[in-house]
Amino acid sequence: MDTCDIDTPFALVDLDRLEANIVKLQRYLDAHRIANRPHIKTHKIPEIAHMQLAAGAIGITCQKLGEAEVMAQAGIRDMFLPYNLLGAAKMERLARLARRVNLSVTADNEIVVAGLSAAMTAANLTLAVLVECDTGGKRCGVQTPEQAAQLARRIVGSPGLRFAGLMTYPSGPQTDPFVRETKALLATSGIAVDRVSGGGTPGMWRAHETHEVTEYRAGTYVYGDRSQVNNGAMTLDECALTVVATVISRPTNGRGILDAGSKALSSDMPGLDGYGMILEYPRARIYALSEEHGHVDFNACARAPVIGERVTIVPNHVCVVSNLFNQVIGARAGLVEVMWPVAARGLMQ
Amino acid sequence: MDTCDIDTPFALVDLDRLEANIVKLQRYLDAHRIANRPHIKTHKIPEIAHMQLAAGAIGITCQKLGEAEVMAQAGIRDMFLPYNLLGAAKMERLARLARRVNLSVTADNEIVVAGLSAAMTAANLTLAVLVECDTGGKRCGVQTPEQAAQLARRIVGSPGLRFAGLMTYPSGPQTDPFVRETKALLATSGIAVDRVSGGGTPGMWRAHETHEVTEYRAGTYVYGDRSQVNNGAMTLDECALTVVATVISRPTNGRGILDAGSKALSSDMPGLDGYGMILEYPRARIYALSEEHGHVDFNACARAPVIGERVTIVPNHVCVVSNLFNQVIGARAGLVEVMWPVAARGLMQ
Repeated sequence: MDTCDIDTPFALVDLDRLEANIVKLQRYLDAHRIANRPHIKTHKIPEIAHMQLAAGAIGITCQKLGEAEVMAQAGIRDMFLPYNLLGAAKMERLARLARRVNLSVTADNEIVVAGLSAAMTAANLTLAVLVECDTGGKRCGVQTPEQAAQLARRIVGSPGLRFAGLMTYPSGPQTDPFVRETKALLATSGIAVDRVSGGGTPGMWRAHETHEVTEYRAGTYVYGDRSQVNNGAMTLDECALTVVATVISRPTNGRGILDAGSKALSSDMPGLDGYGMILEYPRARIYALSEEHGHVDFNACARAPVIGERVTIVPNHVCVVSNLFNQVIGARAGLVEVMWPVAARGLMQ
Repeated sequence: MDTCDIDTPFALVDLDRLEANIVKLQRYLDAHRIANRPHIKTHKIPEIAHMQLAAGAIGITCQKLGEAEVMAQAGIRDMFLPYNLLGAAKMERLARLARRVNLSVTADNEIVVAGLSAAMTAANLTLAVLVECDTGGKRCGVQTPEQAAQLARRIVGSPGLRFAGLMTYPSGPQTDPFVRETKALLATSGIAVDRVSGGGTPGMWRAHETHEVTEYRAGTYVYGDRSQVNNGAMTLDECALTVVATVISRPTNGRGILDAGSKALSSDMPGLDGYGMILEYPRARIYALSEEHGHVDFNACARAPVIGERVTIVPNHVCVVSNLFNQVIGARAGLVEVMWPVAARGLMQ
């Protein structure tokens, strides 16, 4: 089947580019002896996770328990869940998962550690727990090396748990000093830090500059998007996922309306001068989105498209875009090779 | 099952409020003799569409052919698809649908009219087509009454099509003059305008002020959201859908992190002072979203939540939020009555 025969709007994955992106990051991390643990939150597709493992990744990263369960069902046996998991229901699911796969998680506070310990003890399991550190990301994470060391000691002293290292997102200039100070504090208690997990697609080509990082979690790099082009991590020619849309109306000379709106492109990152880049009309601007309409200003273009014409859009933030589609179309040279269900999307929990 | 036993994050629908919202708009439109044709894009759930019909709606409105197909499968037999449909694949699906249900669509240009006419003629069907008019919405739609009349005449002259009236979104002060002028132009050709379809939840309680409108399409009103509270169309107590989340981290005194991010709340309408309102902490501000983390500033609150505490969020824009979940939980007084698959979400096309 030719991709031209697929009705719009749909998410199209260029398989050559996808494969090249997977190989490129793997080679770079291999060259710097950093373990590759790609984040599947971007694609949520088991087969792509298997492609990443086949290329040399040591395991995967998931952001939700539901994602991890889907990946386990697809036969993946090594996964990291860098998220504070809480509550009876999640603890039961976590124990079931920990029995089946080589699993590690994170914690940034004692309440999470206590919950994990109780659940793993009751299940007669031992779970690897890393301490999440805020090294500038200002999201989750302990705030100081002292807090990191204290929580690590708490994990060491908790039945059912094994202290497995430190984790941060994104890793960057503040990471090495934070990790070294934490290591020094823990060394006095005879506690070693074997694993330091860093991540982020924007900083992936500088991963080797953060010397303490032993493994790297990147997600967006498989597909690429406009934000990654904008920050210089990837080129436009490396963007593997596009949204194919049709021009359905030309109400005025300058205005065109696409059949892709916020339910296909998402409203993420409008600061990037509109909601995506139209490859055939790079000077056009997607200036507004309704749910099923993209509003485009074609005034800056030499010519504007006719009604019925197809256009190809590089989205601003691909992780939230792939999450909007039940399936993506994988193609090579315009021919469909695979229709992948986005298996781990839309899950509660 | 108690809703407390459902793991977060999830979308919770208060069934009492949902039913009250459906009844309230129906009564208002009945009182003003305006036909009610609710837009199902907000909920995408067949059973809710049936509730709307049972309350007195004359049919439903869908925004995508895929939504209409799902609703037809659920037994709904009257639907309006106010969208420019184009291309061979959609024409084939449209003909299949038109055979099964009482269907009407819109067009705002001659290319769409020609495509519809060819498809319906080939299928030996007659399709009702309304002319979409831009009466201030600046999305799709013909720009002037002259253009509207011209396109209506084209529809009248097209085999397989029946001119069925005018449609606009949102309807408002510019609608009546536009419609009256178009009617006058068409009267000279002996063409009557029997149906004028208006819509929009923000303006629903002023629908009767636009005298030419014969039917009204509102979508968001079933659930309500922060944007509708903000524009005065609904009260906070009428908001029927909330996202229930857990506080998973308190990295600093003022900062709290929720397990609901842009894949649960969407990034829509950040201009509403953050990405949703936390009912238990109305002075808190969801100032940023990662994909699976909500970043909250609790500094303005008398107290901040503890780790593990649940919070209830009224989202900014509910239509894109319900679209993010595979299912929503319908409950009354804290007890689960139904788990509805969001059947028409995530569809390509």
